[in-house]
Amino acid sequence: MNKVFAPRKPAGAQPSNEGISRGALPGSRKIHERGVPFREVALSGGEAPVRLYDTSGPYTDNSRAIDISRGLAPLRRDWILARGDVEEYEGRARRPEDDGLKPGEALAAPQFDRAALAHCRRPLRAKGGRRVTQLEYARAGIVTQEMEFIAVRENLGRSALAEGNSFGASIPAAITPEFVRAEVARGRAIIPANVNHPESEPMIIGRNFLTKVNANIGNSAVVSGAAEEVEKMVWAIRWGADTVMDLSTGRNIHTIREWIVRNSPVPIGTVPIYQALEKVGGVAEELSWDIYRDTLIEQCEQGVDYFTVHAGVRLAHIPLTAERVTGIVSRGGSILAKWCLAHHKENFLYANFEEICDILARYDVSFSLGDGLRPGSTADANDAAQFAELDTLGELNRIAQRHNVQVMIEGPGHVPMHKIKENMDRQLAACDEAPFYTLGPLVTDIAPGYDHITSGIGAAMIGWFGTAMLCYVTPKEHLGLPDRDDVKQGVIAYRIAAHAADLAKGHPAARIWDDAMSKARFEFRWRDQFALALDPETAQAYHDETLPADGAKVAHFCSMCGPKFCSMKISQEVRDAARERNDTLSAAEIREAMARKSEEFRQGGGEIYRPVPPG
Amino acid sequence: MNKVFAPRKPAGAQPSNEGISRGALPGSRKIHERGVPFREVALSGGEAPVRLYDTSGPYTDNSRAIDISRGLAPLRRDWILARGDVEEYEGRARRPEDDGLKPGEALAAPQFDRAALAHCRRPLRAKGGRRVTQLEYARAGIVTQEMEFIAVRENLGRSALAEGNSFGASIPAAITPEFVRAEVARGRAIIPANVNHPESEPMIIGRNFLTKVNANIGNSAVVSGAAEEVEKMVWAIRWGADTVMDLSTGRNIHTIREWIVRNSPVPIGTVPIYQALEKVGGVAEELSWDIYRDTLIEQCEQGVDYFTVHAGVRLAHIPLTAERVTGIVSRGGSILAKWCLAHHKENFLYANFEEICDILARYDVSFSLGDGLRPGSTADANDAAQFAELDTLGELNRIAQRHNVQVMIEGPGHVPMHKIKENMDRQLAACDEAPFYTLGPLVTDIAPGYDHITSGIGAAMIGWFGTAMLCYVTPKEHLGLPDRDDVKQGVIAYRIAAHAADLAKGHPAARIWDDAMSKARFEFRWRDQFALALDPETAQAYHDETLPADGAKVAHFCSMCGPKFCSMKISQEVRDAARERNDTLSAAEIREAMARKSEEFRQGGGEIYRPVPPG
Repeated sequence: MNKVFAPRKPAGAQPSNEGISRGALPGSRKIHERGVPFREVALSGGEAPVRLYDTSGPYTDNSRAIDISRGLAPLRRDWILARGDVEEYEGRARRPEDDGLKPGEALAAPQFDRAALAHCRRPLRAKGGRRVTQLEYARAGIVTQEMEFIAVRENLGRSALAEGNSFGASIPAAITPEFVRAEVARGRAIIPANVNHPESEPMIIGRNFLTKVNANIGNSAVVSGAAEEVEKMVWAIRWGADTVMDLSTGRNIHTIREWIVRNSPVPIGTVPIYQALEKVGGVAEELSWDIYRDTLIEQCEQGVDYFTVHAGVRLAHIPLTAERVTGIVSRGGSILAKWCLAHHKENFLYANFEEICDILARYDVSFSLGDGLRPGSTADANDAAQFAELDTLGELNRIAQRHNVQVMIEGPGHVPMHKIKENMDRQLAACDEAPFYTLGPLVTDIAPGYDHITSGIGAAMIGWFGTAMLCYVTPKEHLGLPDRDDVKQGVIAYRIAAHAADLAKGHPAARIWDDAMSKARFEFRWRDQFALALDPETAQAYHDETLPADGAKVAHFCSMCGPKFCSMKISQEVRDAARERNDTLSAAEIREAMARKSEEFRQGGGEIYRPVPPG
Repeated sequence: MNKVFAPRKPAGAQPSNEGISRGALPGSRKIHERGVPFREVALSGGEAPVRLYDTSGPYTDNSRAIDISRGLAPLRRDWILARGDVEEYEGRARRPEDDGLKPGEALAAPQFDRAALAHCRRPLRAKGGRRVTQLEYARAGIVTQEMEFIAVRENLGRSALAEGNSFGASIPAAITPEFVRAEVARGRAIIPANVNHPESEPMIIGRNFLTKVNANIGNSAVVSGAAEEVEKMVWAIRWGADTVMDLSTGRNIHTIREWIVRNSPVPIGTVPIYQALEKVGGVAEELSWDIYRDTLIEQCEQGVDYFTVHAGVRLAHIPLTAERVTGIVSRGGSILAKWCLAHHKENFLYANFEEICDILARYDVSFSLGDGLRPGSTADANDAAQFAELDTLGELNRIAQRHNVQVMIEGPGHVPMHKIKENMDRQLAACDEAPFYTLGPLVTDIAPGYDHITSGIGAAMIGWFGTAMLCYVTPKEHLGLPDRDDVKQGVIAYRIAAHAADLAKGHPAARIWDDAMSKARFEFRWRDQFALALDPETAQAYHDETLPADGAKVAHFCSMCGPKFCSMKISQEVRDAARERNDTLSAAEIREAMARKSEEFRQGGGEIYRPVPPG
């Protein structure tokens, strides 16, 4: 997509903080443990508070002021400098074409003023020939502060609960900083953390950690002010996006990206070929390695944390798409296919891959190796083109690993359920367990308008099988531009998928949330149910449509069945009746007693429980 | 739920046909083959029309008049009478308590006037001691007209496509009437078809047929006219519900059910214990076998096609729920548990099961054996209580099979992904492959307000594994009463799940729909995409939000990427360029030629394709 949300303000308006979504979700508050933020839900009924993973940054911290023209505090800046392996430098000179402008054309968006900052005035890069990636450190045996932060973050309320089927994943009972380091060192997890994005809160993507969700955003056709562009990112993380990809094209994209990166607490990903294409007026054939390399450096200096690079679209693979129902459906893939055919040459990203590694290693930008030949319909799933590219991505992963550059691998797309697991199995084998990052997959193509659901089904399954990050799909996919509500619907559907995957993998922390909700439900703690919901506002609004009164928040029934038919109420009465006769016994003793008495009854017809009073 | 939809008219208004949703979906029309209705989508671009399964009845037939006060035409009446094994009789006397009325209290809904009909004035039942079930006929080697209708209906556009993993299902390349008979005879499929519901269009529920979807509806607190109650059913089938359960409670329920059955082209299910409970003022302890039996007969005479009967909730199972997080969450299950404990007796449905079989056999009402002890949270999934009841349902299935009464088995509920398949495997084993009919399951409990999605994930998976019918869940589940849009959202989510399951099982007819959509997408036939959509109205509305102009309906791009970035457009250009050089070759020859030339290039750098002109 290249535009998101309807514009709300006249073009070129000065940045304002009024349009930024603020404040904790209802019933939640921001807490910190050793500097790591969490969403904490306080419960009634004597229940312990529940701690949830929180991607939303300071925007949901009621105690923090936000000023988007100053950006977020540079949490990681001191950590980065203390390692002593980076230097400030002048950086690449800014050019009008960075914003897609023709000579003499004016920028429509306000500039982010770096001079006002104490940090980030000039970009950082590795000193000399050094590599400053988390992978470099991990392999040197160094546990970085990023890794320590992540260990606290991933542990949240985990307990000993670990029943599940992880398909060979190696999820430990507790995440230690050393475990984080070891997973990164093995290339099985990545920490997207550009040295020029110190504002980001460290997070990790890997199959032995919580399943992550990415949301795509992009610029509007009419630029309507910096706040609107920042708000798209803030809105996506408010509902749980772990990373955000800025897929903007057209005008003002350098400037918009600057606003987003400076204000983003989550890693930002991009597809640099989009900006490179703008620099050559949208003519794929005129792309060149020089223009692309220059664009990479531009974005490395800005602080982009990962790049989708379609280096696996090799010339020899293109004929394999000739009989497909839907050809090549990746934008980057089709651009590069066109370039390859036009020039009768191998993809310049493949040809120059080692040099790309060198660049990324200097800033710690991670690869997201793009699947330019992913299937665009269930008919094309798991075909020769797709798997030929996957094998190439495996080869490229091994090259990047030699350069100590972090890598994740992108995956489909459109895949019917019975072909999903093969995608995961082949990816794990071909790419040495490098994190898999899939778009859906959609399990059917018949429901445009509902592709957050068709793809949410596939996403939950492939997440269970081992995919580390799920790229969301909104209800507007295949039809138009997502608006604010579509972005929310997409993120929520994918948070459901990711959490369902964690639960099924047996992730130790996942069950706690479900059980807290279920217990609140059985005990008619309505406010606790709303507060624990993925979307507390919608949960309460739906409840209040039929039972708006405050008394209903403690009622022992809801509008669905009413008091006479409420199964949970009746079930509690049944249990209470049993407990009355057994009030000095433990739950296990009660169960045993009930079973014994039931057996007595079956054998002799004796009394088991006292009658429940009518009512 | 006991209420659906906001009332629109004053109470007691005379029935009107104005509130009934009519007309074909945009881009579709109703066709018939040998009397069997289909939704046909005509396509442009020289593509053959696509034929889709159609549950919506005459309401979507633009050539048919509808008058709900006369009901639908009795399609099956002559077939039923021609078998010579039923007789008309006076039927049970109508009583005020059938409508939940106290003595002297007036009915708030208009009566359906049977005297105005040429048929159905009096109920039918089997002559003498005969059984008139489709199972009885199937085992006698008789292929009924219902079975012939179903064979045509299930075949729709099926071709030889059959790749998939059906987990041991036995899906044939073509459905013959004999195959339908054999599956029913084996107890592996049911045809819910009460002799007193001749208006229904025959359909089948079984794992070797298309996966079906049920939608629940129920009466409103304020009865607002017969049309509103009928419209709930019409609305649910318009979006694809294969059966509808009327879960009404409270006042006027006999009368409302009459309106629904007389106007329903799909089988109607109920939970008779709900009405029985109303007859005893809502006090579970006062339920009795006599009241329940009388209610069964009342509903058999009206034409209900299947009954949820919670005969598996045995006294001895109840203690197994004592340590559950959410106890007993089935309404029927909790009512019966309360009765069992209050009376210190075995469940009267279990104790009188053979007599229930006798009654159902006289009208051909199918059992939906209820899972009163299904889990109400992921924490309780697959526990001892649930599986103890499942084993009892298997025992009851064998009893019903001896009586030649058709049976399906209800299933959970709330189950994390890694525990779903065990449900299917155990059900198939315990219940001799009797059709499984599950509610979801929800794969996580954390997202109230989005449980059509949490459960749609589980429904797609369990449908793939072999569940024959999926009971929908709406976004309001656990929170409140579904309104019109919630019902639609629930049905659409479940149609997605059911179709994804058919696709993954390798059902021969399923792929055609997906491929037609994908091809339309690749060829930018926008109107075809809308027409083929599960929900054409939403698909077009989403498209038109950003590109409303008529010209955009033929544009070779959409608003998502715009013309420069459209992967499908670029992909077509790539393909066209290749084809230009190979225009006398077949697709396979082109592919081979492309591969050969690509290889030549790789070896020697020779030219493969001509350059694509810029643009």
